[in-house]
This record gives sequence, structure tokens and C-alpha cells, in this order.
Amino acid sequence: MAASQKCLGKGSTAPGPVPKDHIRLYSMRFCPFAQRTRLVLVAKGIKHEIININLKNKPEWFLEKNPLGLVPVLETESGQVIYESPITCEYLDEVYPQNKLLPSDPFQKAQQKMLLDHFSKLTPYFHKIPMGKKNGEDVSALVAEFKDKLSKLNEILVNKKAKFFGGDSVTLIDYMMWPWFERMEMLELNHLLDGTPALKKWTGHMLEDPSVKATMFSTETYKVFYKSYMEGNPNYDYGL
Amino acid sequence: MAASQKCLGKGSTAPGPVPKDHIRLYSMRFCPFAQRTRLVLVAKGIKHEIININLKNKPEWFLEKNPLGLVPVLETESGQVIYESPITCEYLDEVYPQNKLLPSDPFQKAQQKMLLDHFSKLTPYFHKIPMGKKNGEDVSALVAEFKDKLSKLNEILVNKKAKFFGGDSVTLIDYMMWPWFERMEMLELNHLLDGTPALKKWTGHMLEDPSVKATMFSTETYKVFYKSYMEGNPNYDYGL
Repeated sequence: MAASQKCLGKGSTAPGPVPKDHIRLYSMRFCPFAQRTRLVLVAKGIKHEIININLKNKPEWFLEKNPLGLVPVLETESGQVIYESPITCEYLDEVYPQNKLLPSDPFQKAQQKMLLDHFSKLTPYFHKIPMGKKNGEDVSALVAEFKDKLSKLNEILVNKKAKFFGGDSVTLIDYMMWPWFERMEMLELNHLLDGTPALKKWTGHMLEDPSVKATMFSTETYKVFYKSYMEGNPNYDYGL
Repeated sequence: MAASQKCLGKGSTAPGPVPKDHIRLYSMRFCPFAQRTRLVLVAKGIKHEIININLKNKPEWFLEKNPLGLVPVLETESGQVIYESPITCEYLDEVYPQNKLLPSDPFQKAQQKMLLDHFSKLTPYFHKIPMGKKNGEDVSALVAEFKDKLSKLNEILVNKKAKFFGGDSVTLIDYMMWPWFERMEMLELNHLLDGTPALKKWTGHMLEDPSVKATMFSTETYKVFYKSYMEGNPNYDYGL
């Protein structure tokens, strides 16, 4: 799989045209935002090529494609460029009709977007709590806020009376949130889920999803990458 | 028009059911985010009722509908609640097929969303620059950043070779950005558009749009409201 190609950095040669009948994803193997798009590509069975980017030492040609310099970025055969993870995922779900991940009902779709907005306020905690701990700070207030926000997610699942956030099968919102939960054990935050049993059960269901299985890394691998990242020298190609 | 009803605050009675064949908008007359939704309601000719909210002194029943306590909020006849301005606008454009404001092409739609993401980094400047000036701070660095971001918008219009951001007619992205430009004169920021002639021309086209005309307030009115707002005692009902 192209996802296992070593990353390209500054001074590298720009890749050629996007292969016929494929879409290209510029990614970074351990990036949770890019994993959203990888999950959608796999879940929908979309033919794709992945080019991994050295985010610490970005190729000049990559900055021309996305001046923000962030992954994920999609590139189509005709050279159209799409970035920002929720936008890439919705784009894929619209262009490729197989295995729809967003509900067709406008209100259910709006609910998924409102939930994503709520979730986007949680993602900073996955970084701030471990960073605070590392620096020997008192993180108890941060942990309390985080637990409160996790409880709201738990409550939504309880009220929904379903296995997943959009019902009894995986939909887009599950994939949008999953990458951060996959990293909880590595971040030593997993015990917080003991207070949110429905959410904990959801992570169990997610781990059985074939697309999750296809895109995930082990806690051991994340630990090695995260250590290198925290030391300021991210090992993007670890394990290749 | 219901938009001219005085605002409801803490201790007020909750409004009854949403009138038949209508959608309800909880709004604040001078809020730029709520104006996005008002523009879409008017542009699409959707039958609606507006309930204005006292945002300084929020009704208890309003916080039950949207725990974030922010406007705009839509409420349907069946009691469904939708908030966050981009989500409300997309919802309306999906549910009401007349006068589509979002392009049907997935890439063009993605482009509008990417542009909205860019624009959302501009909105804080409309607040920070006047606040800094008021506090006697040196705002030159802020103004320079703001001008740089406005230039990018200008460049997009120039490359597009069109009157509006989505082509030669108004589309959703124009309405999403407009409310802040409408307030530039009041905020004494209008001269900054002298450096971005295409963007300045766009504001001229927007001022001719019937939905803009129907939802806008004069600079004089904004000035009175803004003064009361900056003094900590917002006059939500000014002019009624």
C-alpha cells in the first residue's frame, strides 16, 4: 500500500500526475486529521495513492499545493486540490456514491456537523494534558474539563440507544472522532473512559471496524513516534 | 416583519409552537452570525418567524434549546433544533430546494468551504482592531495582518474574474462573509478596502442584492448599538 512509502521533504522532486482513476492523498502516517481522510478512502473503497509529507521539513512543491502546509490534502486527476479534513471527507462522500457515510436526511446531517463542532473542542486536551504532565504542571483542572466533555459524548450515545453516533452502523461522525480515541492508550488517558461506559463500549465497536483496522497503528508504534515528536525530531518513517 | 420584535430575556415566557409551514430563527438583530441565516432565509423566500434573544440576559428556555447560548438557532415545526451559522445555512439550502445557494458540484462546494475557513480567520480582526484602538494600543501589526488577509480575498476575486466569490451571481459564500463587511464603515475600517479594489467592487455589488438590502442596518444604527455594546449595556432593541 502506498501509505507505507517514506515521507518526502524539502528538496524532494514533486510527484508526477495523479494515476488514472485514482485520487491522491497527501498525508502523514501518524496524523489524526489525515487519518480521518484515510478512513473514508478505505471505508468507501476508493482507489487512491498516498504521498507522505515530512511536516517538519516541507517540500516546496507541497506548499504550492496547500499554502497552509497542513495534511490532509486531496488531489484529483484534473489537479483540483482540497484540504481541511472535514471538507476532504465530505467531498469524497459526495463524489463517490458507494457506501454513503453521511446521512441523506438534512437534519441528521446537521446533527453530525454540530457533534463535530463539539468534538473539535475536545481535541486540544489530547495534547494539553500529556504536555502539562510532561512539564510537571498540575493538570487536574484540565482533566476535569476533559472528563466533562467526554461525559457529554457519552450522554449522546446513551440517548441515541445505538452502537455508533449515527445509529447502528458506522457513519462519518464516528470516523471523524476515532483517530483521537485510538491514541488514548498511548497518551495514558484511557482510564478516563471508565467514567463513560457507553463511550468505552463505542471504542470497542470501532476497533472491530475493518477500515479502523486497516488504518490504525499499535500503541507501541505510537509511543515511539510520539516520543520522537515530543523531542522535536519526529520519526515520520518509523516502522518502514 | 417578526425581525422587529423586541428581544426576550431571562424570566420571559417561552414562545409557543413554531407556526405551521414556518421555520423559526432565534436571532439578535445586530449579530453578524445570525445575519448569515437571515440572509439565506430571505434569499430563498422561506417562510419564517424570528425571535430575538437578549444575549446579555438569556432566557432559561433558550439555554435549554441551545446549551451554548448562542444565536443563530433554527427550530422546525417538529421541534428539531439546529445551531452554528454555517450549519444552519447549509441545512436551509438542503431542505428548501428553491434558489439553491450552494453549487451542486462537489469541488465548487469544497472551494466555498475552504474559503469560509479562510474567512473565519479574518473575523476576529473586526473586533480586535477597534478594541485595540479604543484602549490606546498600537494596532499597526494587527492592521498589517488584516490587510494581508484581505489581499488574499481580493486575489481570489481577481483570479475568478467574476462579480461574486462563486461566479456572476450571489452564492452562499458571499452571504457568509457579507455581514462583517456591512459593519466596516461603522468600525472605521472601510479605508482598508482602498488597497483591495476587487473586494471593494464586490461590496458594491453586494449592496445591490435584495436580501442584503432587506437585512441590513445603516452605519448610524450600528454606531449606536456598538457604542452601547462596548459600554457593556447592549441596546438590542435600538430603533424599535
